[in-house]
Amino acid sequence: MNGTIAVLGCGLIGQSWSALFTAYGYDVVGWDPAPKSQSLLQEAISRCQKQVFRPSELESGLGSFRLVETPEQAVSDAFWVQENAPEVLELKGELYGRVEAAAHPDTVLASSTSSLTWSQLATSLKRTSRFITAHPFNPPHIMPLVEIYGADADLRTTAVSFFRGLGREPVLLARDVVGHIANRLASALWREAVNLVAENIADVAAVDAALVHGPGLRWSVVGAHMAYHLGGGPGGIEHYLRHLGPSQERRWATLGQPQLTPDVCTRLVAGVHAEADGRSISELEGERDRALLRLLAARSSI
Amino acid sequence: MNGTIAVLGCGLIGQSWSALFTAYGYDVVGWDPAPKSQSLLQEAISRCQKQVFRPSELESGLGSFRLVETPEQAVSDAFWVQENAPEVLELKGELYGRVEAAAHPDTVLASSTSSLTWSQLATSLKRTSRFITAHPFNPPHIMPLVEIYGADADLRTTAVSFFRGLGREPVLLARDVVGHIANRLASALWREAVNLVAENIADVAAVDAALVHGPGLRWSVVGAHMAYHLGGGPGGIEHYLRHLGPSQERRWATLGQPQLTPDVCTRLVAGVHAEADGRSISELEGERDRALLRLLAARSSI
Repeated sequence: MNGTIAVLGCGLIGQSWSALFTAYGYDVVGWDPAPKSQSLLQEAISRCQKQVFRPSELESGLGSFRLVETPEQAVSDAFWVQENAPEVLELKGELYGRVEAAAHPDTVLASSTSSLTWSQLATSLKRTSRFITAHPFNPPHIMPLVEIYGADADLRTTAVSFFRGLGREPVLLARDVVGHIANRLASALWREAVNLVAENIADVAAVDAALVHGPGLRWSVVGAHMAYHLGGGPGGIEHYLRHLGPSQERRWATLGQPQLTPDVCTRLVAGVHAEADGRSISELEGERDRALLRLLAARSSI
Repeated sequence: MNGTIAVLGCGLIGQSWSALFTAYGYDVVGWDPAPKSQSLLQEAISRCQKQVFRPSELESGLGSFRLVETPEQAVSDAFWVQENAPEVLELKGELYGRVEAAAHPDTVLASSTSSLTWSQLATSLKRTSRFITAHPFNPPHIMPLVEIYGADADLRTTAVSFFRGLGREPVLLARDVVGHIANRLASALWREAVNLVAENIADVAAVDAALVHGPGLRWSVVGAHMAYHLGGGPGGIEHYLRHLGPSQERRWATLGQPQLTPDVCTRLVAGVHAEADGRSISELEGERDRALLRLLAARSSI
């Protein structure tokens, strides 16, 4: 096996993956169904890399990026295929048939899917033992999390090593589920965040500020389960569950079940724009990414 | 008014508040129903301060801490009372009667309550216009969030200024609710975190790692509502709600409703201990606090 990775789908996720892969010395062969410009893609990839890596880190050993015309050309020489096609089962299924026909039998096919499951996608494949879902948290060249599931234990181990080698934090699921772990947690939290706005308990900016300066900050350091272990005092999670478990169950019963009605959507939109306070999406993204990179640097030096 | 604050209840929360108040030059008069040692409390307060402040910041202008025998003595000369009594309505109610009888009519009474509401607590008071809930996120000398609710608009403004002056990030609720904002969000997220373990989708450590390296990290920088604004691409939250709102509603319908059965509790306890990997509660707390302080320093320099 050589060091070539195929990136299928060169939108924002594919560009971000390509930035990471080439920064770590892999050669990337990209394919996209839409006409794309190799030089514009190369520029986007370089911009991603400059966010994360110092110039000295990029001077030597940078892999190449080459755009090709067909998925077959992209995968023919690759040991790893990272698929970032639209979240349409039939579309991915057709692509997988072409990948399987053109790739080496040992080549790993990894899907970045956020909303489909391994079981759904695997029905399109003959060699399911070389197929995994590897869902990044956007943008993947900045965010460490990659959620992994595959039926083959050896491949799961291979995938964990591969992503660790890219400076990521791979997390294994024991079985596949829609939304993996992170988006299910995010969805559960957002439901209550919407409820607090829908019920006039707090406005959008207040809910976001409470999260950023409270539990969000804490969860960037310790997970939710561990937080309750520490919240239990010297008795830890056992003490917490025994003494405060019943009050958690009572609180769960009071959590909201909002719907995204036109009225609720109108208030969410107005609230988010008030919070953005004139900053454009790209300004907000720039602020977010700079802040994330500072926090990641601080975290890695702990 | 002078610069004296009464701290009623000198457990961990009261000690942490006292560290913050005296670091900012206020004199604190503490009271606790249990016999406590002034010198041991003073040591605990100093330890908290050394976590957060450089020695040069503590050299001058540090307020005093004095332990007294009765709540009346504590509040008689205070412009602000921070109450951290146990979460028992009758107990707080009785204490409030004593505070109201002994304090200056203009003195603010602020409750650190996490699980009771302003409306429940205000029934014990005659002067509700000087009463607020001001719930910190533990530990309050480190975590910026203070969630505030009170019926009086002027007092809400006063409280926001007061906590901003202490380097906190006060967040206002528009009406009071059990769990305020942050603990409701945390509770909603934890319900799904428990569900993922109960349903064998992932183990405790995997759920925590997914949170810490994914949404937790992101939410330490942007709130949940703003995250979907950025997740909507150039069309922002409007685009997100129009195109992905229905899929969020479908996902909400699939979120779990676990119960903390003995079996689930056993697995949570085993999973948390596996994740702790031999580290004691105090070691884990030390790691958490050091990491939080590094992240706060990185965030404040952004």
